[in-house]
Amino acid sequence: MPDIPLPFDRKEYADRLTRVRRAMDAAGHEVLIVSDPSNMAWLTGYDGWSFYVHQAVIVGPTGEPVYWGRRMDAAGALRTCYMAEAAIVDYADDYVMNPPNHAMDHLAQTLAARGWAGLRVATEHENYYYSARAHAVLTAALGRAPADATGLVNWARAVKSPAEIRFMRRAMLISEAAQARAREIIRPGLRGNDLAAEIYRVALTGGEDADGPFGGDYPAIVPLLPAGQDASAAHLTWSEKEYAGDRGVFFELSGCYRRYHAPLCRTVYLGTPPKAMLSAEAAVVEGIAEALAAARPGNTAGDVARALFGALARHGVEKDGRCGYPVGLSYPPDWGERTFSLRPSDETVLAAGMTIHLMPAIWTPDWGLEITETILVRDGAGAEAFSTTPRKLFVKENA
Amino acid sequence: MPDIPLPFDRKEYADRLTRVRRAMDAAGHEVLIVSDPSNMAWLTGYDGWSFYVHQAVIVGPTGEPVYWGRRMDAAGALRTCYMAEAAIVDYADDYVMNPPNHAMDHLAQTLAARGWAGLRVATEHENYYYSARAHAVLTAALGRAPADATGLVNWARAVKSPAEIRFMRRAMLISEAAQARAREIIRPGLRGNDLAAEIYRVALTGGEDADGPFGGDYPAIVPLLPAGQDASAAHLTWSEKEYAGDRGVFFELSGCYRRYHAPLCRTVYLGTPPKAMLSAEAAVVEGIAEALAAARPGNTAGDVARALFGALARHGVEKDGRCGYPVGLSYPPDWGERTFSLRPSDETVLAAGMTIHLMPAIWTPDWGLEITETILVRDGAGAEAFSTTPRKLFVKENA
Repeated sequence: MPDIPLPFDRKEYADRLTRVRRAMDAAGHEVLIVSDPSNMAWLTGYDGWSFYVHQAVIVGPTGEPVYWGRRMDAAGALRTCYMAEAAIVDYADDYVMNPPNHAMDHLAQTLAARGWAGLRVATEHENYYYSARAHAVLTAALGRAPADATGLVNWARAVKSPAEIRFMRRAMLISEAAQARAREIIRPGLRGNDLAAEIYRVALTGGEDADGPFGGDYPAIVPLLPAGQDASAAHLTWSEKEYAGDRGVFFELSGCYRRYHAPLCRTVYLGTPPKAMLSAEAAVVEGIAEALAAARPGNTAGDVARALFGALARHGVEKDGRCGYPVGLSYPPDWGERTFSLRPSDETVLAAGMTIHLMPAIWTPDWGLEITETILVRDGAGAEAFSTTPRKLFVKENA
Repeated sequence: MPDIPLPFDRKEYADRLTRVRRAMDAAGHEVLIVSDPSNMAWLTGYDGWSFYVHQAVIVGPTGEPVYWGRRMDAAGALRTCYMAEAAIVDYADDYVMNPPNHAMDHLAQTLAARGWAGLRVATEHENYYYSARAHAVLTAALGRAPADATGLVNWARAVKSPAEIRFMRRAMLISEAAQARAREIIRPGLRGNDLAAEIYRVALTGGEDADGPFGGDYPAIVPLLPAGQDASAAHLTWSEKEYAGDRGVFFELSGCYRRYHAPLCRTVYLGTPPKAMLSAEAAVVEGIAEALAAARPGNTAGDVARALFGALARHGVEKDGRCGYPVGLSYPPDWGERTFSLRPSDETVLAAGMTIHLMPAIWTPDWGLEITETILVRDGAGAEAFSTTPRKLFVKENA
C-alpha cells in the first residue's frame, strides 16, 4: 500500500467501495466503469486535471478498484490513489486524440486481461466524460452495449461522512471570506475581472479553523458576478466591463477545500434598491427559513421545494422548477451531484448527512437576486446552514 | 440584430459560418448540431458557464445559426450572441437533470419545428458535452443516428484571423506576467495554494498593450504547479503542501483573454540543479529553436515533431509521442483544439495563421522540466513565439 497523504482514511474508502458494490449488486452490474472524475476521486482519492482525456476507475467484482488512464497520468494516480501499483493501468499516448485509435479499445483489453470482459459491464451513459463515441467504441470492442449506471456512485455519495462534512465546513469558511471581500470592494467603476481576481486570491489563500490553517482548491464553477441586466442571465461570467451604480450585483461562488464545495450566493445593491427587489428579498429570506425547517430526515425534496415556493407565493413571487441540488465533491464543469433536485415533483426522501445547495434565485428581465445557503440535513431538527453570513440583500447606499 | 458588444465583428462571424457550411457540404451534412462550447462561442459569440447542461448551436442549411439551451441561459444568449431573438430557442427546467426527461427530445422537436428533422443531421460524437445518453435519446427521437461531425468546426478554427491573434497576444502578456510573478515569489516554505492565489490575482487583473488596459478571463485548465517528484506527474493540481528546496517546480499555465489562450510553461529550480536537468534544459532549448524553424507553411506537424525529437536525441534525451497541439478559443476542460497533434505520425500540413502550443515537456521518475512556447505559423519565416520570456531553466540558488 502506497504511503501517501490521502484526504480520507482507508476505512472510509473501504466503506465507500462496499456501498458501491451493494448498489452494483442491486442493479445487476458485475463491473462498473466510472468516468465521472468526482466519482473516481471519491472512490480512490485520484486527483488530477486529466479528465480531458479518457480515464476511468473500474470496480470489478472483487479486489481494489482499478485506475485506468493515460500513461503520463498514471504517475499522478500513484501519488494520489490508495490502491497498490498493480491496480494502476495506463495506456500509451497513441490513444490520445489520434483517430482512429480510441482509448476505449484499450479499456476493453484491460477488462479482458482481468477476465472481466464477459461479465455484466456498466458505464455512466450521462456524463461529460463518457462521450457518444466512447460508448460506441467500447460497445464494439465488447461485442455488446454496457448497461447504464448513470448516478449509481453519485447516489452512494449523497450522505456525507463526518470527515466530508468537516471539509465542507472549511469550504464554507472560504465562501464566506470571498463573499465578505466581494462586498467590501464592489463599487461603481470596479472592473469585473478585478473583482474576480480578488475573489480568487482570497478563496485560494484559504482560512483557518480550530485544526489550523488550510488552503483553497479550485472551484468546479468559476465565480459568477453579474450586475444589472446581465444578472437576469443566470450563467454569464465576468468581463472587463466596469460595474455601474443603481443596480444589483450578485456573487454566485463556492469555496473549495480538497475538491469539496459549499456554495454561497449573496447580492449587493449599489444605491437604493427598487421596492420589487426588497419584496423579493423578504420573500426569499422567509422561504429559506421555511425550507430549512422542512429539510428533515423523512421529508422529501419536494416537501422542501413546496415549503420554499409556498413562502414565495405568499409574497407574490411566483417560482417553480428547481431550487436546489446536492453538493459536495466535484470537478468542473458542475459542483452539483446530479442526483435529486429540490423541485415539487421530486419525492426523494431526505436523510441525515445530506448536503444541499438551497438556491432560491429570483431572475427577472431587469435584475437577479441570489441569496442562497448550503445546508446539512440532520436528525431531530431542521437543516443547518453552514454559513453564518447574514441572509439579506446587502445595500451600499452611496456607492 | 441585437446591439451588443461582440468580441469580433459581424463579418468575421459570417466568414466563420461560411467556412463551416463549406465543410458541412463537403461531408454531406445538412444540419450540424454543435455541442462543444468552444465551437458554439466561435460560431455565435455565446459565452456563459452553462455547458454543464445540454445546449447546442444548430447550423441549418440556411439562415443564422440557432442557439438552443436552457431557459435561464437563453437570457445569456440574448446578451452574447449576434443572432436575432428568433434564433434563440430554449427549453424548460423540467428537462434539467430530471430523468426520464431528456433535453435531446426537445432538440429533436426544435429541428422538426424548422423542418430540419428529416435532413442529414450530424453531431459531435467525441465531445465532453455530447454524452452517450444524449446520442441515444436524439437517435431515438430522430428515428436514426446522427452522423459524426467531430472536429468539423475545430478544423475550421485552425487558421486564426488577425483579430483572434490580437486576443492571443493579450493572453500571452497575461501568461508572461503570471510566470514572472510565480518566479518572483516561489521559495521553500510557500504553500502551493498561496502561489496559485497570486497567479490568479495577476492573471485576472490582466495587462496593458498599445490599445489600452485589458482584463483576464478564466483559463480552460487551472495552473499546474508541481514540484519535485510530484512534477513527474503531468497533471497534479496545487495542494496546501509547502514547497521545499533542492528541487524543480514547473508552472504550466495560460493567460486567457476573452476565452483565447496562449499557454506558457517555465521551470524554476530551488537550489543547484542536477546535471541531468541542465542537460535536458539544453536539449529542450535547442529542440524548440529547431521546431520553430521547421514550423513553416507547407511543412507538416510531423516535420515539427521530428525536428524537435531529433534535437533532443542528439542530447541523449529520448522522447516520442505528442509534443504540441493547436490552441486558441477554449472552455474547460481543455485548452487544446483537438484537431492535429505535433507527433511524428501526423502529416497535417501547416498553414500561416495556425497557433500551436509547442510542448516538449520532459517528465522523468524524479523530476519534470517544462519549457514551452505558444507559436504562430507565418509566411516566409519560421514560426514566431508569442512570448519573449527567456527560454531557460530558471535557478534560485540560495532558495
